[in-house]
Amino acid sequence: MPRPPTIAQQLASKQREISVAEFFERNRQILGFDNLPRAMLTTVKEAVDNSVDVCDEARIAPEISVEIAKEGEDRFRVAVTDNGPGILRREIPNVFARLLYGSRFHSNRQARGQQGIGISAAVLYANLTTARPVRIVSRVEEEDVAHVLELFIDTQKNQPRVVLDDVALPESAHGTKVELVLKAKYVRGRQSVLEYLRGTAIVNPHARLVLQEPDGTRVTFERATEELPAVPKETPPHPYGLELGELGSLLKASRQATVSEFLVKDLQGVSARAAKELLVAAGIPGATKPVAVQGDVQERLLAALRAAPLLAPSSEGLSPIGAMLIKRGLRNVLGTLRPDFFAPPVTRPAKVRGGFPFLVEVGLVYGGALPVDEPVQILRFANRVPLLFQQGACAITTAIGSVDWRRYGLEQKGGSGIPVGPALLLVHIASTKVPFTSEAKEAVAEDPEIDRELVLALQAAARHLRTHLSRASRREFAGEKFSIIQKILPKLAEKTSHLVGKPVPDLTPVVTRIMDVVHVETGLTQEAKTRRVPVTVTNYTPRPRVVELFLEVAPELFARATFAPEPDGTEPALGRAWWTLPKLPPNGRSELAVTFAAPCDVDADDLDWYVAGIDEARLLGADPLPGDWDVRLPRTVVEAAEAAEGAPAGAPGEEEVDYDAAEASAGVRDDD
Amino acid sequence: MPRPPTIAQQLASKQREISVAEFFERNRQILGFDNLPRAMLTTVKEAVDNSVDVCDEARIAPEISVEIAKEGEDRFRVAVTDNGPGILRREIPNVFARLLYGSRFHSNRQARGQQGIGISAAVLYANLTTARPVRIVSRVEEEDVAHVLELFIDTQKNQPRVVLDDVALPESAHGTKVELVLKAKYVRGRQSVLEYLRGTAIVNPHARLVLQEPDGTRVTFERATEELPAVPKETPPHPYGLELGELGSLLKASRQATVSEFLVKDLQGVSARAAKELLVAAGIPGATKPVAVQGDVQERLLAALRAAPLLAPSSEGLSPIGAMLIKRGLRNVLGTLRPDFFAPPVTRPAKVRGGFPFLVEVGLVYGGALPVDEPVQILRFANRVPLLFQQGACAITTAIGSVDWRRYGLEQKGGSGIPVGPALLLVHIASTKVPFTSEAKEAVAEDPEIDRELVLALQAAARHLRTHLSRASRREFAGEKFSIIQKILPKLAEKTSHLVGKPVPDLTPVVTRIMDVVHVETGLTQEAKTRRVPVTVTNYTPRPRVVELFLEVAPELFARATFAPEPDGTEPALGRAWWTLPKLPPNGRSELAVTFAAPCDVDADDLDWYVAGIDEARLLGADPLPGDWDVRLPRTVVEAAEAAEGAPAGAPGEEEVDYDAAEASAGVRDDD
Repeated sequence: MPRPPTIAQQLASKQREISVAEFFERNRQILGFDNLPRAMLTTVKEAVDNSVDVCDEARIAPEISVEIAKEGEDRFRVAVTDNGPGILRREIPNVFARLLYGSRFHSNRQARGQQGIGISAAVLYANLTTARPVRIVSRVEEEDVAHVLELFIDTQKNQPRVVLDDVALPESAHGTKVELVLKAKYVRGRQSVLEYLRGTAIVNPHARLVLQEPDGTRVTFERATEELPAVPKETPPHPYGLELGELGSLLKASRQATVSEFLVKDLQGVSARAAKELLVAAGIPGATKPVAVQGDVQERLLAALRAAPLLAPSSEGLSPIGAMLIKRGLRNVLGTLRPDFFAPPVTRPAKVRGGFPFLVEVGLVYGGALPVDEPVQILRFANRVPLLFQQGACAITTAIGSVDWRRYGLEQKGGSGIPVGPALLLVHIASTKVPFTSEAKEAVAEDPEIDRELVLALQAAARHLRTHLSRASRREFAGEKFSIIQKILPKLAEKTSHLVGKPVPDLTPVVTRIMDVVHVETGLTQEAKTRRVPVTVTNYTPRPRVVELFLEVAPELFARATFAPEPDGTEPALGRAWWTLPKLPPNGRSELAVTFAAPCDVDADDLDWYVAGIDEARLLGADPLPGDWDVRLPRTVVEAAEAAEGAPAGAPGEEEVDYDAAEASAGVRDDD
Repeated sequence: MPRPPTIAQQLASKQREISVAEFFERNRQILGFDNLPRAMLTTVKEAVDNSVDVCDEARIAPEISVEIAKEGEDRFRVAVTDNGPGILRREIPNVFARLLYGSRFHSNRQARGQQGIGISAAVLYANLTTARPVRIVSRVEEEDVAHVLELFIDTQKNQPRVVLDDVALPESAHGTKVELVLKAKYVRGRQSVLEYLRGTAIVNPHARLVLQEPDGTRVTFERATEELPAVPKETPPHPYGLELGELGSLLKASRQATVSEFLVKDLQGVSARAAKELLVAAGIPGATKPVAVQGDVQERLLAALRAAPLLAPSSEGLSPIGAMLIKRGLRNVLGTLRPDFFAPPVTRPAKVRGGFPFLVEVGLVYGGALPVDEPVQILRFANRVPLLFQQGACAITTAIGSVDWRRYGLEQKGGSGIPVGPALLLVHIASTKVPFTSEAKEAVAEDPEIDRELVLALQAAARHLRTHLSRASRREFAGEKFSIIQKILPKLAEKTSHLVGKPVPDLTPVVTRIMDVVHVETGLTQEAKTRRVPVTVTNYTPRPRVVELFLEVAPELFARATFAPEPDGTEPALGRAWWTLPKLPPNGRSELAVTFAAPCDVDADDLDWYVAGIDEARLLGADPLPGDWDVRLPRTVVEAAEAAEGAPAGAPGEEEVDYDAAEASAGVRDDD
């Protein structure tokens, strides 16, 4: 007679394999399907991200339409159509109805989708909530029909189940349409499909996005640029941060004949010379076969790699947004809020973590109609995808909270946490592998390397803000001076002259002495087809000035610009031009203009003006020329400028006018 | 000559399957391995959670030891040993070296591990960072040897690779030891292994936990109770919140002959009658085979199920901590902070979401040495496991922030966000399926049902706080009265009597009239083997009082209690006893005592005292008897009490003494 099963046996009998589809069906919140509005957003997001990715890979300017129709209480039909290259018939089932299957997971370059889960997750959720298949219509250029498939996911096996396999007349040269029926809710405002598409438009200005809302409303985000972003190159992993196990699998998989070739060809940043040296350091013969490097030898190799001074990781695998587009994107989204100040966007050099390169970009705007007494707005992006959920769990948020914004002019209780003020922060993390906190890809995990870069980028942007704010207060003060001088001085002079019975003196020296700034004023006039940016430079200093004026603008804008007068020098590739203005006497002014041909999307903020040879304290409306400009100034000019600065205060003939009295009575003081 | 591959073909050629192990190796941050200190914590956590789970299933009081030894820079050996039932040799490889394999995923009852990922994830991480196998030593009672295995995970296949398979002489009757070498960091303080174990001890007082730190320090958490928690029963899914797809698979998998049997036996909460009615409503013949219910019929069935008035979900699948243990756990962890107030812990009834039952428990303490000007401390737990990370992303945090704590006596900027004050909140979510935001199981996902329960539980606890605070201020006021009366009145009386040359009057009526409270004072005296709680009841009211005193204490403590005098009634099952005290004249007092036999873990806070027949405003040191006590009071007593309350203010003989003068000069006022 058999003995009853022991506890261990009972427990063993319950042990079972779990299919990844079962797992995610049960834990769909992990994939971003925890509630109805979010289910809607995640579904659209996964489909659109795929479309943009595949268009970028195929060098096609993305043209994506999202149609959402209500099919009943809590039930919607979502259709996303792209003009991508299409998908081969044989791949369609796996791509859409099998989790952990994809083309980008094993590649080492920046992409929106990297997990091979996204769209299948949406299909899984649709199957689960409405028991309806996903419908795919796709055409590849080389075939003259479109394939139509309807699919379920067999969750027990995590395999596609094809319920319709047909062909149809193609509606376009190439492209794919995904159609799902799911339980969801369509919302507007925060964390909505619209907000996601707007965010996508900000950081993907080369894409055209059209949304058809359930009530029939059509929203279109037109392209902001015709040029496609450079395709990130496939790059081998960089040794820094590589784990022992990863090095092991790389060695095992290597096709190189020797370990030294492996180091140079299968890894990034290792020069032949570095390889030689570190192999010596590790005591490994260069001719060793890669597979033969195991155990302690492997550990020694890794140690040597970590110690070696290697080349920085290449950023070829990355596709940053770039200063120009960040600025323009922000202007797009801010529209009527009209901020006073767009900080020059910051793009940090590429760094590496766990063998994967990454870089951080930050944009900051301030003022205008942005709310003064609310936390600053935060726009988070990862690999050009907006992150709308889990802000509290995101490394970006932590980094922002760890900066002491009080030092840069924002309110912040106790010097940590989200600061308060009329500002907006755009933060973009680009990486060949973004460490998301979950498959929903809504928050970036804490990581010391990333945190460091985030903080540096944020501080750089914050410094611009501080400069702006101090300059603004200086400008205000100068403004006061202006009015005081214009109102009071003439009266004062008249009165005193009348009293002492002398002719009214020339006030110019007083005015300039009190102001003591070179003022660069820019405007913007719009004609039918062009935009004109007039510039006036006035010398409100008591001495003659030779002003060297420099312009910087995005190269694509520069290409459409004409100048009057012609610049003394230009660097079109960098979008730079400069002028040496005729010597300006006190109160003297000089004018020039920049005219841009259509399309008329230029705005005074797109032009940055710099002045050389005059110290910052004496500049109004322009910044001193940054050090990184290696423009050669005519020696004479520099000397002239220096001379002007250097000359002893109070040249003969000035003392005669008693401006002190004037200042005193006017209650103004000299700034120096 | 072959044509070059088209873009679609190129893309297709890159499509590949991704093994779940590869996926998590690349996204280890998702599993809670994003940095070195966290890698250490997560590893210990997964091992210990498994051990407690398996001991509970086997009805063994858990005895778990965690040994951590430093093996080099950033490298540690972690060994977790339990006294569980052990694991059969044939199951060991899959349990420890294969992701998505386990015994609890498919079951529908509360468990710490529910995903089948945890411990294998730790093994994956160890393999990756140190290229060392995991070592398992396990013995099941029925075998006289222990099996020793060393395992790697083959990430490409997500399959175990056995590198050692041996037997050894067993060191214990049964149990399992897991030993890993991993790249990590050992920290103390916040988010440390120690904090995790302390939290585990709080909510698992039946477990004994021993930690050996790298520097040799030994920390032991002894059992706080000998009784094991009830094993949660396996329960069928509840229809509410079931998705169409889930219903479909249940119908498909059902072994029942008819759909009506399916409804009653395979689902929870559906009575035979309800089944009959809803099948009629859905227009489905009761005799239909479950598998035959498909398409529209299925949808109709689901709609009917959702509309039907079903029985609430059973909480048999759940294992709440319970008020007594929450209170005791909190006292443990708070130790020297000695809070003034432990709110009666709140345990909400079980609710259901997505077919899975869940319940919420909340404990709240206030005052003592808790910091006054910092955010309240939050202890989050899910299925008796402490949650230490991702507080910002957790539904518990959101719920706390959504309550307006200003209404309950805590500071809170703008009435939302984490409140500030000397308080600590313990929140426990128990469910047969906790919706975590990621596999790291550190935060609970937002969910309307859960949020609702959280808020209700928090508000209930908050109400207790408000009562306490108002009572405290009343007590303070009473305290002032005491001192004033004791100091000033006698002097005053003496002086006036002397002036008017009359004898000093009896002040009792004045004292009682001014105080007008019944005061219940408790103490605690400790003898070698016992603890004694003396109780003094004083009638500081101007009228004779019949006081009905009620005691409530945890049944397990009640069993060890002796009373002097004997209570007039008891309900041991509920831990209740009550006395009708002899009629107390004004200023009269009555005493009794409760003595507890060893173990001496009792403390005055464990005893709740209630008084009947006297309104709250006249009670000090005790609460009015809660409505839910259906104790029958002797009629006469009630009448007496009512009579006392009802008597018109100012009975004859009181007016003679001019206490108004006394009050006026003492600056006190009467409270009524």
